[in-house]
Parts: sequence; C-alpha cells; structure tokens
Amino acid sequence: MLKTMFNNVKKENPLIHNITNYVTVNDCANILLAVGASPIMSDDISEVEEITTICQGLNINIGTLNDRTIESMIKTVEKATELKHSIVLDPVGAGASKLRTETAKKLISKAKFTVIRGNISEIKALAFNSADTKGVDVNISDIVNDNNLQETVKFLKQFSKDTNSIIVVTGAIDIVTNGVKTYCIYNGNKMMSSITGTGCQLSALISAFITANSKMQLEATVAAVCTMGVCGEIAYERLSELDGNSTYRNYIIDAVYRLNGDELESRAVFKMF
Amino acid sequence: MLKTMFNNVKKENPLIHNITNYVTVNDCANILLAVGASPIMSDDISEVEEITTICQGLNINIGTLNDRTIESMIKTVEKATELKHSIVLDPVGAGASKLRTETAKKLISKAKFTVIRGNISEIKALAFNSADTKGVDVNISDIVNDNNLQETVKFLKQFSKDTNSIIVVTGAIDIVTNGVKTYCIYNGNKMMSSITGTGCQLSALISAFITANSKMQLEATVAAVCTMGVCGEIAYERLSELDGNSTYRNYIIDAVYRLNGDELESRAVFKMF
Amino acid sequence: MLKTMFNNVKKENPLIHNITNYVTVNDCANILLAVGASPIMSDDISEVEEITTICQGLNINIGTLNDRTIESMIKTVEKATELKHSIVLDPVGAGASKLRTETAKKLISKAKFTVIRGNISEIKALAFNSADTKGVDVNISDIVNDNNLQETVKFLKQFSKDTNSIIVVTGAIDIVTNGVKTYCIYNGNKMMSSITGTGCQLSALISAFITANSKMQLEATVAAVCTMGVCGEIAYERLSELDGNSTYRNYIIDAVYRLNGDELESRAVFKMF
Repeated sequence: MLKTMFNNVKKENPLIHNITNYVTVNDCANILLAVGASPIMSDDISEVEEITTICQGLNINIGTLNDRTIESMIKTVEKATELKHSIVLDPVGAGASKLRTETAKKLISKAKFTVIRGNISEIKALAFNSADTKGVDVNISDIVNDNNLQETVKFLKQFSKDTNSIIVVTGAIDIVTNGVKTYCIYNGNKMMSSITGTGCQLSALISAFITANSKMQLEATVAAVCTMGVCGEIAYERLSELDGNSTYRNYIIDAVYRLNGDELESRAVFKMF
Repeated sequence: MLKTMFNNVKKENPLIHNITNYVTVNDCANILLAVGASPIMSDDISEVEEITTICQGLNINIGTLNDRTIESMIKTVEKATELKHSIVLDPVGAGASKLRTETAKKLISKAKFTVIRGNISEIKALAFNSADTKGVDVNISDIVNDNNLQETVKFLKQFSKDTNSIIVVTGAIDIVTNGVKTYCIYNGNKMMSSITGTGCQLSALISAFITANSKMQLEATVAAVCTMGVCGEIAYERLSELDGNSTYRNYIIDAVYRLNGDELESRAVFKMF
Repeated sequence: MLKTMFNNVKKENPLIHNITNYVTVNDCANILLAVGASPIMSDDISEVEEITTICQGLNINIGTLNDRTIESMIKTVEKATELKHSIVLDPVGAGASKLRTETAKKLISKAKFTVIRGNISEIKALAFNSADTKGVDVNISDIVNDNNLQETVKFLKQFSKDTNSIIVVTGAIDIVTNGVKTYCIYNGNKMMSSITGTGCQLSALISAFITANSKMQLEATVAAVCTMGVCGEIAYERLSELDGNSTYRNYIIDAVYRLNGDELESRAVFKMF
C-alpha cells in the first residue's frame, strides 16, 4: 500500500500551492521536490485564486500569518474547496494567540480541509479552546504516551468527525484518523524536534501524497507520515558525532530524495485499529 | 575571458541590492558571498531608493511578489536605471498568473534591465502572452533541445532587441543573447532542477558578474552562467549515494566558494555564434 | 562561569520571541534549538503582545524591516519592557538608510534593551549619526584592531551608559561592555563573515543566554559570544578542501548543538578589564 502511494507521487508530480511561513519555506519547497512534487509559493490576494487553479493541491500553514496573508488564505481555501482540491491545514501555534486559534477556526469554517496536521497542543486548542500551547511546541502535559493513547484517539476521532477532515497528530507516536479508522505510526527519531519545521515539512509532504492519491487519502496520509518518520531514522543513522541539527535537517531531505517505495514499505511501523 | 570576469567579482566585491522572494533568499545571499560579492536585502518603499544608491547592482526577483513589494520594485528599478546600475530581472512564474506576467512587463517598461533571466516558459509568457508555465517550472512542451534550438534562438534574439536587455534562458542548454551575439552553454546537471532556487541563485550571480564587469556585460553574463553550471557539476561529483537535493544545494554554493578562474575556464563548455 | 551560563540555557529551555528578517530566520530558529532554547517567530500586530507574553525573551532584528513590522516591533518591545523580559536589538544595516537608523533609535527610545549587538559601523551609526555602513557589512575604515581598540572601547562604554544596554560589537575582536566592565573575546574565524547571518544567529543566541541567566546578563552575553566564536572554530576545523560557506553554516549550527559547557570553558579566549 505505502509503496503504491509513494510511487504515485513520483508519477503524478503534483503541483502544490503553498501559503506558508517564511521560517521553513525553503525546506518545504525542497522536501516537495525531493519526493517528486513541485512547489509554488504565492500569497498575494490578486493572484492566489489563479495560482491555486493551476495547481492540484494546497498546503496552508499559519506559522507567520499576518492580516494580509490571512485574507489570501481564506480566498485560496474557498477557491480550492470549490475546485475539490486536496487541502492541508497546519495550524502552527494554535493556542499560542487568539489570532492563530481564530484564524485556524475561520479557515476550517470556510473550507473542506482534507487533512489537519498539528502537534497535540495545537489540535487541542482548536477542539477545546484550551490555550496551553508552548509557543509552537507541544506542551509537556499534552504529550501522547501509552497511558493516554486511548483517550487521545477517542478525542481525535470526534474532532475528525466534527471537521470532516483527516486529523494527524505528530509526536513520539504519530496518530492519523478519519474518525473511523485510526493508524498509530512508530517511526521517527526524537532528534527531529530539534530542527525547526519538521512539522511544516510533513504537512507539505502530506499535501503531495493526498494530491497524488486522491481516492485513498487516509492511506496516502499514513504513507506521508511514514515517509517522514522513516527518513528521520535513515538520516539519524548517517550522523557522525560532530553532526548536529543542521546537518540532520539536510540529511532528512536527502533521505526523502533517495527513498524508494520498497524501503518505505519495509521500514514503516504502524498499527491500524 | 571567463577567468577575468570571475576575478573581477572577487576584486570589486560589488554590493548587490536584492528584492527577492522569501523562499530562496538565504541561498541567494550565501551564493553572492560565495562568489565574492556582498548582498543586501531591502524591500520597504521608504528605503529602497536610498539602499539602491549605496549599492552597485540590483537583482529583482518576483517569486513571492505582493502589492507592497511590487511598488517597491518599481521605485527601485526606476532609481537604479537613473543611476545606470546593472539590473537583473528574474520573472519567476511569469505566465502562471496575470499578476506575475503584468508585473514583469510593467517593470520592463519602467526600467533598463541589463539582463532578464528565466526558464523558456517564463520568457515566452513575456514575449508572446502565452500562459503555459507550469507554476514556477518549465512547461514540458517548451523545453529547448537540438531540434528547436535554432527557432528558439531566433525568438530570443528578437526579444532581446525588443527589451534592449541581454536574455538568459536556462535549461538543459542555457542560452545567452544580446540580440546580436548568442552563446549556448552546456554545463550543469539535471539534478539542479530538484533544488528550489537554482534559477534565483543564478540571477543573483549574474547581478554580481555584470556589476563587476560593467563594460563587458554579455561576456560577464556568460561567465555567471558557466560558473553556476560548472559548480553544479563539481557538486554533483561530490555526492555520495546517500546524498540528495539538500546536500546538493549546499555543495553547489560550496563549489562557488572554492572555484577559481582557471578551473572555470577549463571546465566551461559553450559555443558562440 | 561560562559553563554555568551555557548549562542554564539547556536547563531553562527559554522560549524566545523573534521578530527578525526573512533572510536568516531559519538559521536563527535552528541555532536557538541547537543551544537548547525554543524559537517562535511572530510579527503581526494583532498577536505580538500576546506572543511575547507567553515567551521569556525577545529578539528584535531589523534586517528586512517594513512599515508593517516596524509597528509590530514597537508594540512588542513596549510590552516586553513592561514584562521585564530580556530583549536584544540587532540594528542590521543601521547607517545604510535613514529608515534603519531611525527605526533602531526609535526602538531604543521606546524600550529597555538588555543588549544591543551590531558590527562597529552599525553601532557608530546609532551613536554618532554617521552613515558609513557598507550595506549590512562593516565599513573597512571602522574595523577594530589593536591600534584603535582603546578608543573604541571608550566610545562603546559611553554608548552603553547612554542606552542603559549591554553593547556587543562583533568583528575580528568581539567587544562586550556594560559601561563599567568590558570583555574582549578572541574566538571565531574570519570565514564566518562569508556566511549570511552569523551576526543574526549570535543575536538569537544572546537572547537565549540572557533570558536563561537573567541575573548575570553581562556574563551571559559573554558566554553567548564565546559560544558562537568557539563553534566557528570547531566548524572550521571540520571543513574539507571542497567545503565552502554553505557547509560551514551547517557545521557552525551543528557545533552549537554538540557543544558542552566544559568545551566552551576550555576553548574560550577573552580578557576582562
């Protein structure tokens, strides 16, 4: 399954419209190219509808939102919904400010997001109006572990039904659910949290996978999450004792570039229930 | 010839004003430093004229244009034209939206660009009002090969005359023409298209070369194009089987940093006609 | 002393609010993560007060300022001053345009900056209204050396008293003064000036150190400056003859990630007077 999803990205070469933050935008573009997709970044209100129309998928990331780009995001997600494009929302820092929480909610109310991906604190902020996010990082009290996994999954399934979106929560255990089926994914390495933007990069990858596999979007999302996790492992194995998070960032993108469907299939570790 | 052009960049250390996109801006700054130039990025309308006045060259890239930066670009190119600075235009995504095509045309109408550099789809969009650009990438039907090279060169020479600019089209074969003399350059590696911003980086390099060699701008442009291509080759030769596009990006900039005029001269492959 | 300062950053994991430029923002985020801090980037006026309130430190960098972000910077520094947060100002390009010089001065007038860090030309522009900055780089006539060191230190001590801020000037010799005590730091490598943003990265590091060591801010600043310099040396020692400024950039951040307090202590070279 994963192999087919992965190969479809290479075959379809989907063009992805990104309205994303200026912190990790270069990495998002390079990881899209690494996996076989093509990125375009565009956020001016005069062109976003036209740009999204020539694309097949859309990736919205609110990491450095401002009043100008929020308007562009709204216009774009409405257009992309009308065009039935696959759309990802990455609600970076939801819970850290009213602007972020409310913008994410407004976007959700205006459009059909195929996937919403965040850390558990961001997703809780959207579901419960809690505000315990630690900036753009997860709050320690929120971390998903074996003890609270059942409860977390239950809540995510409900949030998936409420939003009509696939929900992805990434952390030590990654969870993907469409409200009915749920996948827990155990790939990755904790050092990934020492790089800015591995979450943003995953959201970009997801947009490529669901766009190239529009009839199997839950499985495509799982394949994207596994790709990021497996590449986090491959990259980690390459590190010398002098290498740190900057080289690790490069090696993860390199690993995505070099990955093939068979390796993905054989290294992916997940449970479905 | 190439060696002299190259060494002049090191000697002159030109200060280049860049109004460029937020996707590849860091790579543009680092490649300018690598070749021996100095970058300054500035796009606020209150300061652009003053900034461009203290610089010797200007590099305009519309990759993530917006209404605010478009006004700044116009003001800057007018000032730089008045100062007789060397100016590069990189019309990223021309053809992908009306805003991009029209902004590029407006800029061309307001200023004397020394060089306009794009992929063939972008240049066609400006010359013919075609809109076949695939986002920021070349449209497959436009790709330059041995069969359509003659015809392509003919059109580029005309576009060069019409705009009074040196035209650079990059792809498998790079073409540089001033409407009279034309160079075809055969350096580079196809993996360069798997990195975001090799085009943007080349535009930045061209601005450094033409600024440091203001009396031989056609040859300086050829030297910049050869530098990028040769460094794409040198970097490719360094790649291990685990390295991908992210490491390749770093190695290209590294190669520019380490290149010397003799190596450039001996590795450059081009034809003039 | 340095070791304690360094370890406190790891222990406190300070959350740093950054309003910074889009050229080097990714490197600033990654170096903050490398040293054990957490970055958040946010510049919209509707959320900056709220974001800065959940953070412990603030880093303001005017590298690509515009009218929108200047307003946000002012609001943020006022709020952070009210909250008694540690605040760093990096007046990138002060002296290169009126907008930059005046914005830096306005910010200084509105807030209590713990540290102001720049190259000597930028600091002179703020202190003397001189305008000899070479873009964002130091003007050659300003370079600090053994001959003008005494005189430079005298002026920096006065500027420190005038602004009630610790002043950091980086160059071949780095100087840190609070108007009473002065440190000269001799670590680093001249190749650091061939990377865009080593200054910006240092300002980010300083914000992490002073936030995690709020009762010893002069020493914390010295520790941050030594960390950057030592890591510039460690990274330089790793370079192969094919590596250039792009790999060097990665290796410096890697070195920050791998550094420990003992190594910092043993490699730091400074004089206090």
